[in-house]
Amino acid sequence: MGTWFTEKQTDHFGITAKVNRSLHSEKTDFQDLEILETEEWGNMLVLDDMVMTTERDEFVYHEMLAHVPLFTHPSPKKVLVVGGGDGGVIREVLKHSSVEKAVLVEIDGKVIEYSKKYLPTIAGALDDERVEVKVTDGFMHIAKSEREYDVIMVDSTEPVGPAVSLFSRGFYEGISKALKEDGIFVAQTDNPWFKADLMKQVHADVKETFPITKVYTANIPTYPSGLWTFTMGSNIYHPLQVSDERFFEIDTKYYTEEIHKACFALPKFVKDLTKE
Amino acid sequence: MGTWFTEKQTDHFGITAKVNRSLHSEKTDFQDLEILETEEWGNMLVLDDMVMTTERDEFVYHEMLAHVPLFTHPSPKKVLVVGGGDGGVIREVLKHSSVEKAVLVEIDGKVIEYSKKYLPTIAGALDDERVEVKVTDGFMHIAKSEREYDVIMVDSTEPVGPAVSLFSRGFYEGISKALKEDGIFVAQTDNPWFKADLMKQVHADVKETFPITKVYTANIPTYPSGLWTFTMGSNIYHPLQVSDERFFEIDTKYYTEEIHKACFALPKFVKDLTKE
Repeated sequence: MGTWFTEKQTDHFGITAKVNRSLHSEKTDFQDLEILETEEWGNMLVLDDMVMTTERDEFVYHEMLAHVPLFTHPSPKKVLVVGGGDGGVIREVLKHSSVEKAVLVEIDGKVIEYSKKYLPTIAGALDDERVEVKVTDGFMHIAKSEREYDVIMVDSTEPVGPAVSLFSRGFYEGISKALKEDGIFVAQTDNPWFKADLMKQVHADVKETFPITKVYTANIPTYPSGLWTFTMGSNIYHPLQVSDERFFEIDTKYYTEEIHKACFALPKFVKDLTKE
Repeated sequence: MGTWFTEKQTDHFGITAKVNRSLHSEKTDFQDLEILETEEWGNMLVLDDMVMTTERDEFVYHEMLAHVPLFTHPSPKKVLVVGGGDGGVIREVLKHSSVEKAVLVEIDGKVIEYSKKYLPTIAGALDDERVEVKVTDGFMHIAKSEREYDVIMVDSTEPVGPAVSLFSRGFYEGISKALKEDGIFVAQTDNPWFKADLMKQVHADVKETFPITKVYTANIPTYPSGLWTFTMGSNIYHPLQVSDERFFEIDTKYYTEEIHKACFALPKFVKDLTKE
């Protein structure tokens, strides 16, 4: 049978993947980091026993976190990614020629280091000249920023360990201040099957801060339940009122203009979580 | 740790669920049948080691297989479900008051028997007076039917064991003949992550038979990859040209009018499978 890695996504359910070998394993200052070579998904980044990204299905998460807000904003120039040390979101951000500067603020330098080594198709973009990488605390970086960014994307782990502060109302208020007045915020907000309460709380908190708050979904096979949600907060621009001319051809495997419009249609039980 | 049931969805990947106890287990004339009481998903029907349905997430599959074609047809009166012995699709079909008769053709009577016993919220509808249950081969039933049904739904297992013949071009031709001239056909057609070739072949075959062929998706956590596809074949009615007045309030947990329109937007790598 060989070795299998099992992620318990809840106390009673999980996924399991055949592992050819462990490429790296260490306890960093912030979390347990492991890179596994799996048969089904290619190389896989695991933090605190949770799958963060895999070579095979990473495109879904990274494209959907980046392109939905970037196509909603009419001309994103300065973009901040909080977390996301694997570089996948930055790679997608750079596909927008309007972007002059993309700042990555990742708390754990080891994630960057080992993603560059073992996930080069994902992390390669971090060496681009438009990218500035800061190894520091995202919450603190946000607190010091004022009217600086067009789009802020929060690519965090789940709210355990170093990411706890990234799921707080104070954080969303900080983001609102760090954004330009017409800025857009987006965060990954887990799944409605196992984390309904979290999703509901985040939605309520973001809604307190941003006049336009919308949830969208994408299918990510290696994430819990496969149905992932993203929550967007915007002051002015509505993601479903994007002019047709705004969309341009882009090299993607998941995102399309049609998906942009469709991903906001929520299954009824998910939509119910966004109502007071 | 207790007992866990693991479904190997591919040779190198699977899901695993904590089992409180096995409620029933037998080798029927057609397949291995097991009903497990799980902690996360409630009672679970397993055929040939594959999860068929669970009490907790069954609504997604059953609603999406039934309501998308039923709301596309202006007035479905006679409906055939091939397979689906658990009764979930029939339950959804009966929510349409236009339906006068719903025929279920299931090859394995044991699936019906034990679904009624252990999945009563799913199978209870099979006792409705509008329902006729036939324990016989779906392929043969289709071959004997002519211009009889408004909608035919194929709720089969994957194309192994008794379901092999339900994924053949001859079967789709038989369905076309069994449908009234303005009839609609829909089948579950597996997932694009692990069964891309199957999906592609089915789409090409259905397209040979029906002028309007469309693929739509839904998220089903306990099915491989979580991204499930359905392929619809129609002679006249287009699922995206349904008059707004056609939609009526219906008691669902996943399907909505918005989802009906959005579920046909395919991720780019899935859409590519539907091109020649």
